[in-house]
Amino acid sequence: MSIADYLLSVKKLNNIGRWASDFMHRRASVAEHSFSVAQIAQLLGIMEENAGNKVDWGRLYKKALNHDVSEAFTGDILSHVKHRTEKMKHMVEEIEVLIAEDMLLSSFNEQYKEVFRDILFDGKDATLEGRILKYADNIDAVLECLYEKNLGNKSPFEEKYYEILRKLEGSDLVSVKIFLRDILPDLEKRA
Amino acid sequence: MSIADYLLSVKKLNNIGRWASDFMHRRASVAEHSFSVAQIAQLLGIMEENAGNKVDWGRLYKKALNHDVSEAFTGDILSHVKHRTEKMKHMVEEIEVLIAEDMLLSSFNEQYKEVFRDILFDGKDATLEGRILKYADNIDAVLECLYEKNLGNKSPFEEKYYEILRKLEGSDLVSVKIFLRDILPDLEKRA
Amino acid sequence: MSIADYLLSVKKLNNIGRWASDFMHRRASVAEHSFSVAQIAQLLGIMEENAGNKVDWGRLYKKALNHDVSEAFTGDILSHVKHRTEKMKHMVEEIEVLIAEDMLLSSFNEQYKEVFRDILFDGKDATLEGRILKYADNIDAVLECLYEKNLGNKSPFEEKYYEILRKLEGSDLVSVKIFLRDILPDLEKRA
Amino acid sequence: MSIADYLLSVKKLNNIGRWASDFMHRRASVAEHSFSVAQIAQLLGIMEENAGNKVDWGRLYKKALNHDVSEAFTGDILSHVKHRTEKMKHMVEEIEVLIAEDMLLSSFNEQYKEVFRDILFDGKDATLEGRILKYADNIDAVLECLYEKNLGNKSPFEEKYYEILRKLEGSDLVSVKIFLRDILPDLEKRA
Amino acid sequence: MSIADYLLSVKKLNNIGRWASDFMHRRASVAEHSFSVAQIAQLLGIMEENAGNKVDWGRLYKKALNHDVSEAFTGDILSHVKHRTEKMKHMVEEIEVLIAEDMLLSSFNEQYKEVFRDILFDGKDATLEGRILKYADNIDAVLECLYEKNLGNKSPFEEKYYEILRKLEGSDLVSVKIFLRDILPDLEKRA
Amino acid sequence: MSIADYLLSVKKLNNIGRWASDFMHRRASVAEHSFSVAQIAQLLGIMEENAGNKVDWGRLYKKALNHDVSEAFTGDILSHVKHRTEKMKHMVEEIEVLIAEDMLLSSFNEQYKEVFRDILFDGKDATLEGRILKYADNIDAVLECLYEKNLGNKSPFEEKYYEILRKLEGSDLVSVKIFLRDILPDLEKRA
Repeated sequence: MSIADYLLSVKKLNNIGRWASDFMHRRASVAEHSFSVAQIAQLLGIMEENAGNKVDWGRLYKKALNHDVSEAFTGDILSHVKHRTEKMKHMVEEIEVLIAEDMLLSSFNEQYKEVFRDILFDGKDATLEGRILKYADNIDAVLECLYEKNLGNKSPFEEKYYEILRKLEGSDLVSVKIFLRDILPDLEKRA
Repeated sequence: MSIADYLLSVKKLNNIGRWASDFMHRRASVAEHSFSVAQIAQLLGIMEENAGNKVDWGRLYKKALNHDVSEAFTGDILSHVKHRTEKMKHMVEEIEVLIAEDMLLSSFNEQYKEVFRDILFDGKDATLEGRILKYADNIDAVLECLYEKNLGNKSPFEEKYYEILRKLEGSDLVSVKIFLRDILPDLEKRA
Repeated sequence: MSIADYLLSVKKLNNIGRWASDFMHRRASVAEHSFSVAQIAQLLGIMEENAGNKVDWGRLYKKALNHDVSEAFTGDILSHVKHRTEKMKHMVEEIEVLIAEDMLLSSFNEQYKEVFRDILFDGKDATLEGRILKYADNIDAVLECLYEKNLGNKSPFEEKYYEILRKLEGSDLVSVKIFLRDILPDLEKRA
Repeated sequence: MSIADYLLSVKKLNNIGRWASDFMHRRASVAEHSFSVAQIAQLLGIMEENAGNKVDWGRLYKKALNHDVSEAFTGDILSHVKHRTEKMKHMVEEIEVLIAEDMLLSSFNEQYKEVFRDILFDGKDATLEGRILKYADNIDAVLECLYEKNLGNKSPFEEKYYEILRKLEGSDLVSVKIFLRDILPDLEKRA
Repeated sequence: MSIADYLLSVKKLNNIGRWASDFMHRRASVAEHSFSVAQIAQLLGIMEENAGNKVDWGRLYKKALNHDVSEAFTGDILSHVKHRTEKMKHMVEEIEVLIAEDMLLSSFNEQYKEVFRDILFDGKDATLEGRILKYADNIDAVLECLYEKNLGNKSPFEEKYYEILRKLEGSDLVSVKIFLRDILPDLEKRA
Repeated sequence: MSIADYLLSVKKLNNIGRWASDFMHRRASVAEHSFSVAQIAQLLGIMEENAGNKVDWGRLYKKALNHDVSEAFTGDILSHVKHRTEKMKHMVEEIEVLIAEDMLLSSFNEQYKEVFRDILFDGKDATLEGRILKYADNIDAVLECLYEKNLGNKSPFEEKYYEILRKLEGSDLVSVKIFLRDILPDLEKRA
């Protein structure tokens, strides 16, 4: 059994930096990003509930907390690699699954194998919780870009800021609309 | 309204280091610690369920994710201050509540005030989830000490390692017993 | 005897950062701040002497060098905690004295106990040297804020800069007046 | 034209760390590693010449200096991903070529396109210079592992040290034999 | 024999920072600077060849790669010390030669002594390759200043930027002219 | 007038690291070292007074606080350069005086020129205070080496530890004897 492996891998996310190849004033680790996404997802979830939608909190937290754990096994493949073409996207995803199966799951007994496969690869699906995760991930990236932009680190973070903002503006989640209308203007001034 | 304040405070946990006044090879931020505690709590929760216990996942994740958020408002008061005497403990807790009320909650409208008071101060109670949080927090501290100990940073981390270990050995949670018996020996060799 | 404890505690001030929870481009350790405050106090002292005032140099240096040593025992309690209300201020000061007595002074023999109690807690009193220390501490904070402000790190350092400046403008020390009139404008351009 | 892109990409190698997901005391950037490999290749080349072999110095330096430049475009894909299976190796290499073509070379005019394709992808071939590069790359990795091993950072660097050593022992280059016999024992004591 | 000494000294260039006493957002190590200068020299060399000039590539790479290795023996003497007066320049150069002879070369056998003396001290002479090195060194300094300038770190990097630019404008190398005309404007916008 | 220059130079000591070219786990800045030397000198001074010797506290603090300020003007010339031969020592000292005169003192008016020349160059003379400074400087270096040695960073810090220890053992100051007999053994166990 190798639950110890899982814990040690999770700890490796402290060592892996976000946006690896670009200079940043405030570089977060993947662990810090995961914490932040979970906090943002929690906030969006509260807003969805205030708006009358039903949130499965166990599912939402689980998705948010674990959405980047597989990076501990593959390293930080730059996101422009992932997002350049559909072919690239599939190649990177295939690598992520193969490596996680090979390095972690293969050594688990049956009791844990299914649970952890679900933890590692249950991500941005069409459920409310999957959609909240997707936009929480975007909002954290927007915040990272905003910090850099406000500190004068414009290239490439100014461009990326507006690029990710457009993704948020395409969301029909009520919580994302509230974020854009009520919270972001405040953040833009004070981040 | 100041939800933006909450987000910016959460982000400050990236800047605050654990065990502030001691030299560490692998210092984690409070954000990284919070992520790690949530991962460990998730692991203990899976084990409790395997053992037939019922886990309220929404509650468990919420407790784990938010248990140190109030440090963003008070700064890093050294834990030996907190734990020296009962009087000290109460003084520090009183400071934490007063500051959080004053800096954050006072500016919230009623809709959010209760939700966030619960998020900030619903911690290590007597529920199964509260007890899992307590020991997950200890297990992360054990892991931090273990890394330092294995890297030769003995003072004060060797002593602290055994001190926290004794707390874990006092637990009657089945998941903590499994951790001590099956996982820790593996971690001791490979961390 | 535990003079060794005192030295090891002093060395811990290298690990404790100033303004812990805010992002800074140029974060100084408490040790670096203490060095800087002693240098600034020396400068103000020279100016006071040039203006005909008598400076007790042994006392001035001693106050400046040791004014934050007690932070090695308590950790970095955020200054807004200390300064929010009179009640908070007293609670934090009480914690500082209790912890220093308990962790350091209690183990000293009588020969050293009085000497070190004086070193740790003889601070910003009404003597000329006590007042120079008070404003040297402010001037170093102004310099820290100025560096951040000039590097574009405006939140919260721009606001803090003017806030601390107002404290300096309230001083009737001739050296502080010279600093504000002759030195600060030069620093503002070139820091 | 985008020679500027090339320069800015080269500078990004300062931001990308080696062995990204493992904790290291002395983490080098990919730029530092490239410098080091070029220095080691130079040393092996001198030894090959002393042994009567002809070295094409222009080719050797060019191979060594540029062998990891393409990582600026793909990010730090962990080497265990690259080396796990032949299939993985091919997938990663395909990604590296596609991304470099797409991000850099496509925008070059014909005059530069061929020159830079050669710079980016002329690596560890069967020429003497290609073989020197291969082992210089290994020797730098051995040195990195040796530093960590000697500093007590055993997991995973002790195991990797012996693993890469075995690769060096499989070399029939006279310079590598001299390195193993005359230089490594000295390094083991003093690194 | 002490080839091991040479390698360990080269590795020390990872620890020595450029522009030591000034605050920098993006401080490079001397190793990173050496890598960068070699890359820039390679680029200028390609342009010289395109313009019909003959480049001795082995010599060019050798000069670029090794031009700051002697700093591993002397430490980072601030460049304003070196460049203040002719007398200072000679004193520093004399120190560099004396120390390298004493710490490294004296222990080499004859076979290596001449080779390494050439590697350490064959620098910015009047050959095409020596002149390319000189301007590649300037261009890397310009890039370092440009990054700081664009990030708002103006003192002293804005002044130094224009100061070094004037040196480049004094060059009659065709490659430097191309750099100033075609590449720098692009870098100024995007660095 | 350029008192501002003096302050900005003092602040540069935060950027300059001790033992620049060697890897250290706990590298202190020159500012932190200066603070530490002043604290150690204070301790030795207390012991000298306890032993009945008269200490000029103003002079002792002034010497300790300012003994390395001139490094802000020259950069970190490695100490082995300074200490290799008498000739080297004189060359480096000449450089330090020339640069400080040229960069700082030349711009002062008469009122400050003499005061600051005294501050910068009144060091390790034969007075009790000058001798305390000399050994306080050694004791801080011993502490730095001890931390590295205890953390397993043996090369070169183990050798240097014993080398500097022998200097301390050559002292006839009563305070240094007390340090060696009563305090160092405690530090060796717990640093």
